[in-house]
Amino acid sequence: MTRTDFTEITHSAVIRQETHGWRAKCLQRLIRLDMPVPRTVSLSFAAVRAIAAGNLPDMDRLLARFAPGQLLSVRPSPQFPDWGGPGALLNIGMNDTRHAEIAAAHGEPVATRLYLRFVQAYAQHVARLDPELFDAAEPCLPALQAALHDYENEMEEPFPQDPALQLAEVLRSMARAWEGTSARLLRQAKGAPAEAGLGLVVQAMAGGLGADNSGAGVIEFIDRVSGERRITGRFKAHGQGREALENGADTLYLTRDPRGPSLEDHSPEAFGALVRHGEIARAKLREEMQIEFTLDKGELAVLDAVPVVRSSRAEVRVAVALAEENIISRDEALMRVPPRALADLMHRQVDPRAPRDLFARGIAASPGAAQGRIVFTSSAAQASAAREEACILVRRETTPEDIRGMHAASGVLTERGGMTSHAAVIGRGLGLPCVVGASGVRVDMRERSVSVGGRVLREGDMITLDGSTGEVLAGTVPLLEPALDESFRTLLVWADARRDIGVRANADTPADAGIARGFEAEGVGLCRTEHMLFEDDRLLVMREMIFADTEQDRAAALERLLPMQRADFAHLFDIMQARPVCIRLFDPPLHEFLPHTREGMRGLADALDRPLSEITRRAEALSEFNPMLGMRGVRLGLTVPEIYDMQARAIFEAAAAVGGTRGDRVVPEIMIPLVSAVREVEMVKARVEAVAASVRAETGAEIDYRLGVMVETPRAALRAGEIAQHVSFLSFGTNDLTQMAYGLSRDDAGRFMSDYVKLGIFSEDPFQMLDREGVGELIMIGAERARVARPDLTLSVCGEHAGDPESIAFCRDAGFAYVSCSPFRVPVARLAAAQIAIAGAR
Amino acid sequence: MTRTDFTEITHSAVIRQETHGWRAKCLQRLIRLDMPVPRTVSLSFAAVRAIAAGNLPDMDRLLARFAPGQLLSVRPSPQFPDWGGPGALLNIGMNDTRHAEIAAAHGEPVATRLYLRFVQAYAQHVARLDPELFDAAEPCLPALQAALHDYENEMEEPFPQDPALQLAEVLRSMARAWEGTSARLLRQAKGAPAEAGLGLVVQAMAGGLGADNSGAGVIEFIDRVSGERRITGRFKAHGQGREALENGADTLYLTRDPRGPSLEDHSPEAFGALVRHGEIARAKLREEMQIEFTLDKGELAVLDAVPVVRSSRAEVRVAVALAEENIISRDEALMRVPPRALADLMHRQVDPRAPRDLFARGIAASPGAAQGRIVFTSSAAQASAAREEACILVRRETTPEDIRGMHAASGVLTERGGMTSHAAVIGRGLGLPCVVGASGVRVDMRERSVSVGGRVLREGDMITLDGSTGEVLAGTVPLLEPALDESFRTLLVWADARRDIGVRANADTPADAGIARGFEAEGVGLCRTEHMLFEDDRLLVMREMIFADTEQDRAAALERLLPMQRADFAHLFDIMQARPVCIRLFDPPLHEFLPHTREGMRGLADALDRPLSEITRRAEALSEFNPMLGMRGVRLGLTVPEIYDMQARAIFEAAAAVGGTRGDRVVPEIMIPLVSAVREVEMVKARVEAVAASVRAETGAEIDYRLGVMVETPRAALRAGEIAQHVSFLSFGTNDLTQMAYGLSRDDAGRFMSDYVKLGIFSEDPFQMLDREGVGELIMIGAERARVARPDLTLSVCGEHAGDPESIAFCRDAGFAYVSCSPFRVPVARLAAAQIAIAGAR
Repeated sequence: MTRTDFTEITHSAVIRQETHGWRAKCLQRLIRLDMPVPRTVSLSFAAVRAIAAGNLPDMDRLLARFAPGQLLSVRPSPQFPDWGGPGALLNIGMNDTRHAEIAAAHGEPVATRLYLRFVQAYAQHVARLDPELFDAAEPCLPALQAALHDYENEMEEPFPQDPALQLAEVLRSMARAWEGTSARLLRQAKGAPAEAGLGLVVQAMAGGLGADNSGAGVIEFIDRVSGERRITGRFKAHGQGREALENGADTLYLTRDPRGPSLEDHSPEAFGALVRHGEIARAKLREEMQIEFTLDKGELAVLDAVPVVRSSRAEVRVAVALAEENIISRDEALMRVPPRALADLMHRQVDPRAPRDLFARGIAASPGAAQGRIVFTSSAAQASAAREEACILVRRETTPEDIRGMHAASGVLTERGGMTSHAAVIGRGLGLPCVVGASGVRVDMRERSVSVGGRVLREGDMITLDGSTGEVLAGTVPLLEPALDESFRTLLVWADARRDIGVRANADTPADAGIARGFEAEGVGLCRTEHMLFEDDRLLVMREMIFADTEQDRAAALERLLPMQRADFAHLFDIMQARPVCIRLFDPPLHEFLPHTREGMRGLADALDRPLSEITRRAEALSEFNPMLGMRGVRLGLTVPEIYDMQARAIFEAAAAVGGTRGDRVVPEIMIPLVSAVREVEMVKARVEAVAASVRAETGAEIDYRLGVMVETPRAALRAGEIAQHVSFLSFGTNDLTQMAYGLSRDDAGRFMSDYVKLGIFSEDPFQMLDREGVGELIMIGAERARVARPDLTLSVCGEHAGDPESIAFCRDAGFAYVSCSPFRVPVARLAAAQIAIAGAR
Repeated sequence: MTRTDFTEITHSAVIRQETHGWRAKCLQRLIRLDMPVPRTVSLSFAAVRAIAAGNLPDMDRLLARFAPGQLLSVRPSPQFPDWGGPGALLNIGMNDTRHAEIAAAHGEPVATRLYLRFVQAYAQHVARLDPELFDAAEPCLPALQAALHDYENEMEEPFPQDPALQLAEVLRSMARAWEGTSARLLRQAKGAPAEAGLGLVVQAMAGGLGADNSGAGVIEFIDRVSGERRITGRFKAHGQGREALENGADTLYLTRDPRGPSLEDHSPEAFGALVRHGEIARAKLREEMQIEFTLDKGELAVLDAVPVVRSSRAEVRVAVALAEENIISRDEALMRVPPRALADLMHRQVDPRAPRDLFARGIAASPGAAQGRIVFTSSAAQASAAREEACILVRRETTPEDIRGMHAASGVLTERGGMTSHAAVIGRGLGLPCVVGASGVRVDMRERSVSVGGRVLREGDMITLDGSTGEVLAGTVPLLEPALDESFRTLLVWADARRDIGVRANADTPADAGIARGFEAEGVGLCRTEHMLFEDDRLLVMREMIFADTEQDRAAALERLLPMQRADFAHLFDIMQARPVCIRLFDPPLHEFLPHTREGMRGLADALDRPLSEITRRAEALSEFNPMLGMRGVRLGLTVPEIYDMQARAIFEAAAAVGGTRGDRVVPEIMIPLVSAVREVEMVKARVEAVAASVRAETGAEIDYRLGVMVETPRAALRAGEIAQHVSFLSFGTNDLTQMAYGLSRDDAGRFMSDYVKLGIFSEDPFQMLDREGVGELIMIGAERARVARPDLTLSVCGEHAGDPESIAFCRDAGFAYVSCSPFRVPVARLAAAQIAIAGAR
């Protein structure tokens, strides 16, 4: 080891975040801001690596930096605060001698408390002894003696008395802990590279043991949850480090407070200095900091400062406030807020301060918190909604029949399914908190109970879902309301000014479209028309259409659906004003519209006045081995062409009507699903054009529209050059494309996906983050071939991936016009797109 | 029109098949062989096209080629015999005058018959009048007069008397018929291009009306069904054209025959000349010809000759015989037999001469004919087999549970499914005739009946399946036995000498492997190990494994499967001798091993001694939305790794044992299914290598093996470069690759595939013929990337496509080492590969 092993942190010392860590750098900044920071020495990443390898610095030289007998603390200093590291270790240097000295100066209890704390921490974190052995209740002399005795017993040597030895062992143990597997996994989860280094800072402990106005405290200048500016924190006389936050009996509020004594009253000068330091730190460190301080007989020392841990809502508010005060730039503000944080703001949240009674854990499929009484059927959910009583719909899995139940429920919990199961997709679409694939949960429909291990909850029991973490909590827990406040809106206005890729919303109903408009989507990128047809009045007509025996009966049913669809589309065009609306023609297999239970079949037999046996037989005949790969999309559209004819007519008539009322022209976009061959496109195109011609002739309106293809089979991507010649736009449906590229059903992948990601077989769940290597290559092949054939083609991505920042970056790199995601992800996508543009410009 | 409008066919005339059609050319050859062909004039394709457009040749000039008053015939002459064309029209020139002349020479009845026939044919085919009007029973003078009267009534003009006008109208009507839609579709189905032309030949009718030894006949020199050389045909005194074949009362046999008088006895000289002409035609036209002839007072005229229409078996026998006699080359013989014809030879066939009582029509899923009593369950099939009574298993669709029933049945009929449904694939594998997706058929399991429209067949009724045509026949029909005769074997030996791509067989059981060996497969290209596990004794152990509660229970079940699988593999290695055997690790989802009926569930509950509710619950938990895209293949292999461990051990132990016995080394090939990411390959590879190391250590044997990947997801094709670095071979599984490229389940495609092909949306069923544009591109991408990464990699295709000639051509073009198809398609593939090589060399 050389002289550069360690560096005292001064105004002029060479301390860099990349070599000494963020804490060392932060402390130097505080020093440069003339704050009263106790003497501190920084050990670089290289030095700590050397320590781990067994090469200690010269301890005598290191200790010579401090006053003789000075107690020391050691804190971790990785490159970024959230990369973790070992906990701080205080009071290094305590031994029998120091115990006697402090006892003489401040009384035996003070000395004993310090010494016992040190022995406990040292035994646990340095000697790695069983913490329970040293978990004494009340700090008193006998407890201290017992601890020292136990230590000697276990280690077969007395507790080390030499401060140099103590410090050396602390440094060694921290250096080695950093190399451990669990520490490495933890920091890698936060994005740290494998070779990330740890720095350490050794600091003189600053008093706080003496008279009345001595002690330690922590101060913050914002509310962690709301982000509002107000001073919070605690001060504890005779305390050390963060003890004040433990809410002991003898803590002080910081500002004047009717609930008890405050530091402001008690030590107004010190308090004033602290507030001034806080202001300076905020302005110069360009961040809301939590400051750890001590008072020694009224004299202030600033020990440490870390960014305030805060809620997503506070994150947004702070970023916007700092930018509005010109402390940071708007770009900086945009970059500081993780896009996913916005999702939290749009939903109720479980109060992070509340205790949680964890019942089960599943996949966090749709963010936000919900609570209510457990129901097991859609009809129970509707009944509950009718009583205005919140309920949580619990199912093994949901089917399209559950849509009404989902509308009525506050949240959904399913035993089965993954991120893109029916429940998850619909949940996100509705903004409904949803936990799916809850492991170990067993739903018993007959018993009307849900159980995990031995624990059982029954219909009517209260339950809370945290759709942001996947936790299922028994009983009620305090929730925070959504926070679509001014800061949220401001940030997104800034984001829109920066981003260079469009963001549309997937909106299946006028209600969805309203939300999409509220979140400033630039249009509807995907309207799945079938979702309109699951509504109560339409469902029965759909079923009549499916069971029609003759062309005439089918035509009659479609004739009744036409005005309903026309009204839907008119409503949609109206809500979206001049913004583009892309309508996907009917996609799902017909059997999705049939009931799935015997009860439902019986109801349908009644409604259609046909024998039950015929209903079940026809339903069975429509069932498929692999519905995902079956008679759906354009295949159904060409086999039963009257459906698309009806939809095209509804679209054109609605466009003509709305355009007529508004005085402009509505140019709907019509998208063909599940194409695999160019002939499919040609044939649908011919029929749609024929319908347009009829409507033109009948209404005299100018009917204009754009036709496009949803590229969701690998073959459509490969044949995109041919297909492009017949259409104005292509939208890549990455859900299905992922399913087909991998040969992997999103509904069935839940069973092994988490194992696969854990084992690193898939680096990420490809339904969550677009697989650039496989699916991405198919998209690029398709985009290139389509552009060669038709350079003016509009390209986009719709589907769940479109809300994922990585995937948005992919689309921007590919030069796509827009992404289209579920309405509740629109703000996330807007921010993510801005960040990508800013990062690209840098 | 110019003088070249028509050409009299002489030795030296310029008559080409490409411009005048095969019949004109054939007649010229007969003339050049000095056969007594009556005067014949040929109209070229161009001339006929001009006629259709309204430009008739100079009729007087044309008629001047023939003697005055000569009756004429007109016959079609397209470029190839099987391209169809209008029927021949005889006796042109008949009118009142000729009627009187012939009546004077040969008697009134002869003249009346000729005239009536002509009026009937002219009215129907030229004037396009309703044939029923002219469908008189007995030819007699009143009938003739009525016909002439009716003609005049309908046409409002008398029957034309001018021979030039008659001929002109006949030529015009034939020329126009060729342009009609149905004629075009018929010839396009035979491979004719859209612009294919029609030639016509106008020939002098050769007497046959006179004394006793006058008349017309048809002679063939082979048996149409067996291909054996023997003279068949008929002669009819006073007959015309092909009337002799109508088996009227006054026809003669040709050769001496105990059943009646013969031409050989009656006109030995003419018969002798005919036989000599036949010999010459065979040798010079290099084909077995059917010759149409007349005798006019004992004088022979040869009117026409066409290739004998024959069975597939006769096709092979003729081709081999001609080559063995050096009349044609071996290459020519190989090129003459359509590969699919071989499939017919390997199975029983419905006798083409027998009448058929068509009950329903479905997809011809597995060739050959079968008949037996209808059964509706596998157990009934097994019971039937135990009574040695042939049965046909009729199901809505088959599942793996039906395997035993399929083994026991003579054929399978299903209401649902397509060419690659379970029933179809297994049927072809077992060489079991199979008709699937029978349209309009309804199977009623409760009633034990199968119905189409109003017609019902019940359990125990006799039924016949023609798996080569897809016909379902009520009752019994005479069947022809398979014909794996010397000619068949000789042809395939010649094929092997010419082909330059390997042919392996997919063989799942030792029985399959035996068949594969019998058909000279060069190895096993795909052994689907799960099929071994559906056998009775294994199935229960598999189910125990699936229901195991603990690792130990699962290990115990696998422990019991190990010796069974080892024995299977040993048997396989033994049968295939030194030929390579490629074993695919377990692929299907586990739920395929569970019973699908409540009855089956109850049986399993008994067998496992568990409550029924648990069985149904576990089965339900294993069920999947899209099993094709679910927890199967390597996903299952990595999630329950003990299964692959067991299989790898069974393979290595079997290889060691068989190698030890035989004294050589068995080098098994192990193939990983459903790979989508390279990590899957790395992980399986590590485990397989570990098992190999254990077996090496335990047995002391040298264990050598080759590891490969079945490329069946689009992503695996795209990532083939990475994957290739870890394996020795890649085999493209084109079934799954097609399913995933199209997003199309083979089990569900049946519902719309025939519509799709009919509408030209898909040019062919992509499960039948490899889709070069989409799936083919994925394969080429995969092959190129894999070869760049590892030039010595072995590439192949396994799956149903491998038996399809077009797809074999694709694989050969791509430079693949081999194709692997079901055992019964091996001969087809061997011949197809030879034809591709010959065509490539030309």
